[in-house]
Amino acid sequence: MPEYKAPLREIKFVMDELLDMPQHYASIPAYADVATPDMVEAIIAEGAKFCEQELAPINRTGDIEGCTRHDDASVTTPTGFKEAYAKYVEGGWPSLAHEVEHGGQGLPESLGIVMSEMVGTSNWSWGMYPGLSHGAMNTVELHGTAEQKETYLTKLVSGEWTGTMCLTEPHCGSDLGILKSKAEANADGSYSISGTKIFISAGEHDMAENIVHIVLARLPGAPEGTKGISLFIVPKFLPNEDGTPGERNAVTCGSIEHKMGIHGNSTCVMNFDGAKGWLIGPENKGLNCMFTFMNTARIGTALQGSTAAEASFQGALAYAKDRLAMRSLSGPKAPEKAADPIIVHPDVRRMLLTQKAFSEGGRALVYLAAQQNDVVKKGEDEEARKAADELLGFLTPIAKAFLTEVGCEATNLGVQVFGGHGFIAEWGMEQLVRDTKIATIYEGTTGIQALDLLGRKVLMTQGQSLKNFTKIVHKFCQAEEGNEQMAQFVEPLTALNKEWGDLTMKVGMGAMKNRDEVGSASVDYLMYSGYAVLGYLWARMAKVAQDALAAGTTEEDFYKAKIATARFYFTRIMPRTKGHAESMLAGADTLMDIAEEHFAF
Amino acid sequence: MPEYKAPLREIKFVMDELLDMPQHYASIPAYADVATPDMVEAIIAEGAKFCEQELAPINRTGDIEGCTRHDDASVTTPTGFKEAYAKYVEGGWPSLAHEVEHGGQGLPESLGIVMSEMVGTSNWSWGMYPGLSHGAMNTVELHGTAEQKETYLTKLVSGEWTGTMCLTEPHCGSDLGILKSKAEANADGSYSISGTKIFISAGEHDMAENIVHIVLARLPGAPEGTKGISLFIVPKFLPNEDGTPGERNAVTCGSIEHKMGIHGNSTCVMNFDGAKGWLIGPENKGLNCMFTFMNTARIGTALQGSTAAEASFQGALAYAKDRLAMRSLSGPKAPEKAADPIIVHPDVRRMLLTQKAFSEGGRALVYLAAQQNDVVKKGEDEEARKAADELLGFLTPIAKAFLTEVGCEATNLGVQVFGGHGFIAEWGMEQLVRDTKIATIYEGTTGIQALDLLGRKVLMTQGQSLKNFTKIVHKFCQAEEGNEQMAQFVEPLTALNKEWGDLTMKVGMGAMKNRDEVGSASVDYLMYSGYAVLGYLWARMAKVAQDALAAGTTEEDFYKAKIATARFYFTRIMPRTKGHAESMLAGADTLMDIAEEHFAF
Repeated sequence: MPEYKAPLREIKFVMDELLDMPQHYASIPAYADVATPDMVEAIIAEGAKFCEQELAPINRTGDIEGCTRHDDASVTTPTGFKEAYAKYVEGGWPSLAHEVEHGGQGLPESLGIVMSEMVGTSNWSWGMYPGLSHGAMNTVELHGTAEQKETYLTKLVSGEWTGTMCLTEPHCGSDLGILKSKAEANADGSYSISGTKIFISAGEHDMAENIVHIVLARLPGAPEGTKGISLFIVPKFLPNEDGTPGERNAVTCGSIEHKMGIHGNSTCVMNFDGAKGWLIGPENKGLNCMFTFMNTARIGTALQGSTAAEASFQGALAYAKDRLAMRSLSGPKAPEKAADPIIVHPDVRRMLLTQKAFSEGGRALVYLAAQQNDVVKKGEDEEARKAADELLGFLTPIAKAFLTEVGCEATNLGVQVFGGHGFIAEWGMEQLVRDTKIATIYEGTTGIQALDLLGRKVLMTQGQSLKNFTKIVHKFCQAEEGNEQMAQFVEPLTALNKEWGDLTMKVGMGAMKNRDEVGSASVDYLMYSGYAVLGYLWARMAKVAQDALAAGTTEEDFYKAKIATARFYFTRIMPRTKGHAESMLAGADTLMDIAEEHFAF
Repeated sequence: MPEYKAPLREIKFVMDELLDMPQHYASIPAYADVATPDMVEAIIAEGAKFCEQELAPINRTGDIEGCTRHDDASVTTPTGFKEAYAKYVEGGWPSLAHEVEHGGQGLPESLGIVMSEMVGTSNWSWGMYPGLSHGAMNTVELHGTAEQKETYLTKLVSGEWTGTMCLTEPHCGSDLGILKSKAEANADGSYSISGTKIFISAGEHDMAENIVHIVLARLPGAPEGTKGISLFIVPKFLPNEDGTPGERNAVTCGSIEHKMGIHGNSTCVMNFDGAKGWLIGPENKGLNCMFTFMNTARIGTALQGSTAAEASFQGALAYAKDRLAMRSLSGPKAPEKAADPIIVHPDVRRMLLTQKAFSEGGRALVYLAAQQNDVVKKGEDEEARKAADELLGFLTPIAKAFLTEVGCEATNLGVQVFGGHGFIAEWGMEQLVRDTKIATIYEGTTGIQALDLLGRKVLMTQGQSLKNFTKIVHKFCQAEEGNEQMAQFVEPLTALNKEWGDLTMKVGMGAMKNRDEVGSASVDYLMYSGYAVLGYLWARMAKVAQDALAAGTTEEDFYKAKIATARFYFTRIMPRTKGHAESMLAGADTLMDIAEEHFAF
């Protein structure tokens, strides 16, 4: 298994130098006193220690052991998972970014994201347990009654209880409008929930004394489709008067799914057999309630892409320095050895730099989105909040789909760097491929994100959300005009930024005639947008590095590597936009002309 | 598990209509009498039945069970593998494309490839057992003494015994020059072989009464590097005088590797503890001997890419017609159902068509290469043989690396079409991803193939091997000049064909100054070449279809679908060449500028 070392210098670079988080925290009254530079640094250092020492060592064993469901429908998590969770709770980590009034520490969500990154890179499967709790907490916090908050939220924030999100059913995932689970009102104001939910992450386990399920179901006579879905809170154990877990509720784990990866996570079929639950939020508005924090949840999943790239990069880099094979084409580099370390070979470097560019670029994108989320949640200036919300909405599908797609690519490259050994389980590289593939699917597939971006975010605003972003890029490029060192980045970025608008216009025109043009162009459009956004961020990172070098620094090598990686990104990754640009304009008929029955003979 | 149905119409299209195999077989005296159209059809039909009925049903169980090594170092293969192999032998399949004098049927290797395709699509792991035998047979046939052929080859051809190729060692795979296994001469003319070999497919199993290992090792005092490696034949059981397996040899399975996929194949660590063996071919020429049939072996691996695309496509297509989710953007297509089948969605079609284009295009490429191999082996015209050999040499690294890379992409798309269910093992789609990843690694990684193509095949011939191929493409394009229906294919193909030459020239010029430019450009160059070759084949397939339509046919839908797929390929896949073209010219400094120690801080 690749050893995990939290990339603290890289995190600091994005936090302090690229995004100026210290100033950002200072500017938001809710954070100014708590998220001080010292506090932030201490939390990250402490978090890094926890992830390196507690989570990384149980990542591979978690994959091997998986979770076990017993005859009594209880589930045991892999060795060490429970103990690590206890330490996580003891360290106060679940409460980091939650409200003080519910026992939280009131720290910014963007700081929580840094911790999530380190957790996810060291052990994604484990991280899903607190990750799902986070979703449940957000739901109760935003839509729960005071009593529900008192009963459930405080326990979730303390980490004593964990949570789940029960959305998917066997016949529906992306299309929740056709879900069948039912909720019938009881006389006491509670509801009886019945139905089968699948793919329920952390649905049943042995890590906490109670599990709070957030469940989508239909009330009797509810309208069909997405407008007839309500949200319920269904605890595994019904809380006693004193808040302790009481009677066992009729919600049980029917089985554990056999999956490609994330074996350490207990992914359950959950059976609700008249389980007792309570409505959260208004009747039939369940999906709307879910949407209110969809952006945050999706940014959390976007992280899986960049963290996978980072984990795989750490493994591949160590191996590439160590493994000997062949001589460099330009002459032996380690003549004293039987062969050169494979890092001398250009193509091995191409693979490593691809991973590095996606990991570091991905971090920048995720942190940028999280920074917007801070403003949305706690900013005091209404206009700034609105702008941040729009930017977050625009960046979210890009971050989610693009980073998970390139994250998968990065993990496959990690296997490739290892050659045959990459295919062997003990090295841990193939686990990263298996663990990461789900990221392009759950929390909205790449296809769904692409429709969200192009259809809902861009075209439904007549391109405004894109324009808001390209304006930011344009401003950056303009400011660097005449900066010779930056020309290698600014010139292609300027051209891309313009082309992005042109392409949007063309696709939009086509869509007015035929709605299928949206679906036909969407994934290419999304990938194009992803490369563009990362290009902008890499240009900005290069600029930060150049300024640091110009100002004089003891870390010359660090900043020079940053510029070299930006150059790699611009010359070897960004050209992919050309293919996507052409493909997205190919027209829907290239996809729709074949009748369903003529795909195969 | 997706059910396998041999795509007989598609196979026939490539065999008869695209490549005119009937005429090809008739023109080669060795095949004219045996590979008659009736015989070919009967063999393919029989093979299809075997694969559909015997191999496909044990593919997923093979993945679940894997192979088991027992305390006595014996290995049990998954349920049904042994029985299926017995039927395979009974059916005479191992002998199909081998010489009559050794018990073979003397049929063309290209017909063997059709069978290998069907075997591989239905159950790749199982197919590796006869596949490795095939490699061993080729070695003995080409380099063995008459006695070795008598003793080993006849048993391999009959299928009573199987074979392995023992090349890789723990510290070396791509770089065989540094291998350590030793061979010391015994007084009786045999050798004592000692060393550890890893990743030995079919190294130990229960399917045959004996296993013939082909082993690379060094003789005492042999020159260092690749010029000091010899080839040995080391049987599991030493043959008795009467040819039956006798005394157990000192070669044993030390352990079975835990792998990402191909669990049904027994991938062994093999320990040679002074095992008795015999030299094949001249001393110190072992690697040269291996190279003589490397092209065939690599074409066999190329198949894994196209067969994986086909298997995943078959699964995804069935699911896409069945699974209901959302309404078509252009209005409901199945209003009587709760939602439309997902095949109405453009992006689902984009994924299916990508799989289809790679599967069918890949088949065309592999069969084309196999056709050249027939000529190389049995053609009577010296010039034609030379031309075929050069074309085969040029196409081999492209087929191997490009088809396995896009095969991996196709299997990932198959998972994506299934959404969350794709990640669940029972559907069999994730198995295809896991099984296929190894194809980009073994038999020479993508990076190794790319160096072979650009460095050895193209630049070392001053571009001649490329010119030979672009001339073929050019001739095809010229012949279609003025054909309006073909313009959509011929125009972009003509441009690409020219650009291919220009790019080669530019990369070649750079390489004269700095050898690292080869490694820097190689994988982009290979992928570019792959898209170009497949483009040529898709244009040719479109031409065949247009001619059939013009001539009048009862299969209009089939031919129209062919043209539509070609159009999809040209408008939505081929644009990827643009990114590769730009990236390959970015220059080695974009990769080499970062010092090894500055990749991470």
